[in-house]
Amino acid sequence: MTAIDLNSDLGESYGAWEMGEDETMLGLVSSANVACGFHAGDPAGILRTLKSAAARGVAIGAHVSYPDRGGFGRRNMDVASEDLVADVIYQIGALKSLAEVAGTRVTYVKPHGALYNTIASDPRQGRDVVEAILAVDRSLVLMCLANAPLVRLAEAAGLETVSEAFADRAYTPEGTLVSRREPGAVIHDPAVVAARMARLASDGEIEAVDGSIIRLRAQSICVHGDSPGAVSIARAVRERLTADGITISPFAPARGDMS
Amino acid sequence: MTAIDLNSDLGESYGAWEMGEDETMLGLVSSANVACGFHAGDPAGILRTLKSAAARGVAIGAHVSYPDRGGFGRRNMDVASEDLVADVIYQIGALKSLAEVAGTRVTYVKPHGALYNTIASDPRQGRDVVEAILAVDRSLVLMCLANAPLVRLAEAAGLETVSEAFADRAYTPEGTLVSRREPGAVIHDPAVVAARMARLASDGEIEAVDGSIIRLRAQSICVHGDSPGAVSIARAVRERLTADGITISPFAPARGDMS
Amino acid sequence: MTAIDLNSDLGESYGAWEMGEDETMLGLVSSANVACGFHAGDPAGILRTLKSAAARGVAIGAHVSYPDRGGFGRRNMDVASEDLVADVIYQIGALKSLAEVAGTRVTYVKPHGALYNTIASDPRQGRDVVEAILAVDRSLVLMCLANAPLVRLAEAAGLETVSEAFADRAYTPEGTLVSRREPGAVIHDPAVVAARMARLASDGEIEAVDGSIIRLRAQSICVHGDSPGAVSIARAVRERLTADGITISPFAPARGDMS
Amino acid sequence: MTAIDLNSDLGESYGAWEMGEDETMLGLVSSANVACGFHAGDPAGILRTLKSAAARGVAIGAHVSYPDRGGFGRRNMDVASEDLVADVIYQIGALKSLAEVAGTRVTYVKPHGALYNTIASDPRQGRDVVEAILAVDRSLVLMCLANAPLVRLAEAAGLETVSEAFADRAYTPEGTLVSRREPGAVIHDPAVVAARMARLASDGEIEAVDGSIIRLRAQSICVHGDSPGAVSIARAVRERLTADGITISPFAPARGDMS
Repeated sequence: MTAIDLNSDLGESYGAWEMGEDETMLGLVSSANVACGFHAGDPAGILRTLKSAAARGVAIGAHVSYPDRGGFGRRNMDVASEDLVADVIYQIGALKSLAEVAGTRVTYVKPHGALYNTIASDPRQGRDVVEAILAVDRSLVLMCLANAPLVRLAEAAGLETVSEAFADRAYTPEGTLVSRREPGAVIHDPAVVAARMARLASDGEIEAVDGSIIRLRAQSICVHGDSPGAVSIARAVRERLTADGITISPFAPARGDMS
Repeated sequence: MTAIDLNSDLGESYGAWEMGEDETMLGLVSSANVACGFHAGDPAGILRTLKSAAARGVAIGAHVSYPDRGGFGRRNMDVASEDLVADVIYQIGALKSLAEVAGTRVTYVKPHGALYNTIASDPRQGRDVVEAILAVDRSLVLMCLANAPLVRLAEAAGLETVSEAFADRAYTPEGTLVSRREPGAVIHDPAVVAARMARLASDGEIEAVDGSIIRLRAQSICVHGDSPGAVSIARAVRERLTADGITISPFAPARGDMS
Repeated sequence: MTAIDLNSDLGESYGAWEMGEDETMLGLVSSANVACGFHAGDPAGILRTLKSAAARGVAIGAHVSYPDRGGFGRRNMDVASEDLVADVIYQIGALKSLAEVAGTRVTYVKPHGALYNTIASDPRQGRDVVEAILAVDRSLVLMCLANAPLVRLAEAAGLETVSEAFADRAYTPEGTLVSRREPGAVIHDPAVVAARMARLASDGEIEAVDGSIIRLRAQSICVHGDSPGAVSIARAVRERLTADGITISPFAPARGDMS
Repeated sequence: MTAIDLNSDLGESYGAWEMGEDETMLGLVSSANVACGFHAGDPAGILRTLKSAAARGVAIGAHVSYPDRGGFGRRNMDVASEDLVADVIYQIGALKSLAEVAGTRVTYVKPHGALYNTIASDPRQGRDVVEAILAVDRSLVLMCLANAPLVRLAEAAGLETVSEAFADRAYTPEGTLVSRREPGAVIHDPAVVAARMARLASDGEIEAVDGSIIRLRAQSICVHGDSPGAVSIARAVRERLTADGITISPFAPARGDMS
């Protein structure tokens, strides 16, 4: 029987500002990348999201970011290694305690936005993030872009990784994401997205923009949580996968025991 | 043999801004109240202070604050309970992970500035802080102003407390601090301060502003870390206590094991 | 012919977080209280709102706040006078330049949230705000809660004021707002709200919670911009006033010349 | 008679954190680059520095920055044009009002840290900053790194510039700064620095690292305000220039009238 993880960015409201449909999404995904306060999220809102995730058995990842609330963590920042390492430890630690209070725990780390994109291929910042995660808890898993150089860098350092595919993104024949500046980079039709993800989950294959079929190793599928069509796509993917007999479950539900 | 704890606020630099003489103070005190990023401290600087404290066997307290970096946590803020509880959990959690990475651990919590003063007698915010600490780790100790109503509130809720005296502050006959707006509220002569603390440590007595002798139950003495004369006072207190045969050691060094 | 001003809080989005329907509201109100970055608003978003307001001839007020983005400026903060004065100058200055670039200008100041409520009756903070406004530009107008002690304090200092009524709030027989903690404090029916405001605009009268009719001197009516029913209420008030022959226009459109 | 401007970064304290010796430096320089709150400076502290500068006739420049207090504006940030333009307008506007209240006015803009370095040669961000300054006030002057491509870009857009040399930095034979990563990039001997600046001010010449003499067009000399030796270097430069009969005065003291 085939199983795959479905993840989404959640806990991204901030103070008086609401973002995302956390309640609805938590009924659809198996893993929640929860904001840690550096790009989004305030402690009380994060705690609410964690409690809801705990109640539904959704796994928790620390969605760590550059310290840039004004730019939602989407701006490249040239953060020194000493700062980046400590910033990541700080965020994971804050989320760990909130998660424990909520009756759950952090099992993985997924860097957010510009940090995610940068470390996919920048070895200096990649090493910083890997070092920080290992320092906090060697049993944490790093969620990476499938096929990114970061995967090997992390595994070589002794950090387990899980690779993810993006549900609504087009892929190049080389297995990388088509840049958002290119036409067709984002796929909007929920049914098309769902069919692509079903094929990926069952056969490990996806059709690239040039029509060629490529292999993509992904244990998780990312569906967005904050765009208008996010819920429709998440629901379509979930329903199609389920219909095809694919189980949606956290990639690492059994790591350690819930104390 | 008599023993008492000596504590100071540390880790209060922020980015390019230096504050306090952490290295020197860590050679004098037995407990460090380490900033958690809400009123002061950035993760990299906090981590440096924690590593130095770990190397010297200084105990670590989470110096949690209102979210007010611009006001250094010294301004009263009307924070709702849901926020205050989650803010405290967030800060303790962040410091816990940084401390573990530094090879030490958080054994107590000392609220900072306006939050410290408010909860000394405000039961609503006091309960919020107590609830947050208990939710994170029931073995944490709350450091309180000696004789404050908070002591009883926390103990009644099952949270262990330690009471502290302020080395350079005058006391009323009722055992409360003389307000800083009153003349003589702060004692500047290191020798006088040291003699008062020696008497307090050995006999549990301190002379109040009216000349009467009062009893003050304090297991810890707070010396400031960020004022010009801070180091001289801390050194004078330490030397006098040591000369009098009083051991300076963390109030709770043996709680749990260092994992 | 009777005229009254209709004002609303706008420009309150922040980075990736949207708030309020600025475009729609700018078609309904005559004055926009524009966030200045301390409780809400980022420079680019503020500039967009200002450009849209300029295109529609909507007057601009600086919606100054305590420095508390996480609490949306709704938490009481004990800000020292030196800070409060400078914070208000800073915010007005930032908005003035943005407004000039947008082809309009700031004609009034309306403190936001907790600052608004505090200075309505706290003379120390009230004097600070008045001093700051006068220091920046003596031709600015302060928008105040009708019947608040602040009105007299500001006028005595030589600062012109405009008093406002809250469209959807109940009033006590003394002419003050019924506390939100009381039942019936907020009126939700757009038609009822509109009828009350029509009577207020034409006759200067409003029915208090006890059924008595009180006089309320208000040159402006505040309609909210960020709640779900905000647009319906604003539209209902505007349509009713217009139907009753009351002109909706800025209270001070002709102050100075647009340079 | 020869004259040159001497500028320094000031107003960089933040809340409880002190930085720089503003009072002493204001007695030595003719122009103050005053922080605007994005990398450093809080409104009350900025206002104090402005009042002191006003009392001494020191010219005021807006020291605008990326929004990065934690990194002191020294980290490269990939800020979108819409944000960068509005961020610069916001900062200039805030400083303008504070300056007016202090009895002086902003006559120039000097970008800070990473923004300064980036726009020296990055035309996209350079254009954004130039556009922002022109939009606020076409009579403002942009202070640039001598020989940087930004000089021509700004002048072509109709923005007046003033070029500056860095007192304690070594220059390449091409007239650019020797990178701080190279040995000898920073000159520490106040007498050597002073002699180099005297030659630059009188003859427009400076000795490059390879011993060759190059021409450098600079109307202003930057001396640092926040390093330990800052005051000694500033004093040495001022005394040597004065001894050589060179007047130290703002490059643009007479622009417009002080209203």
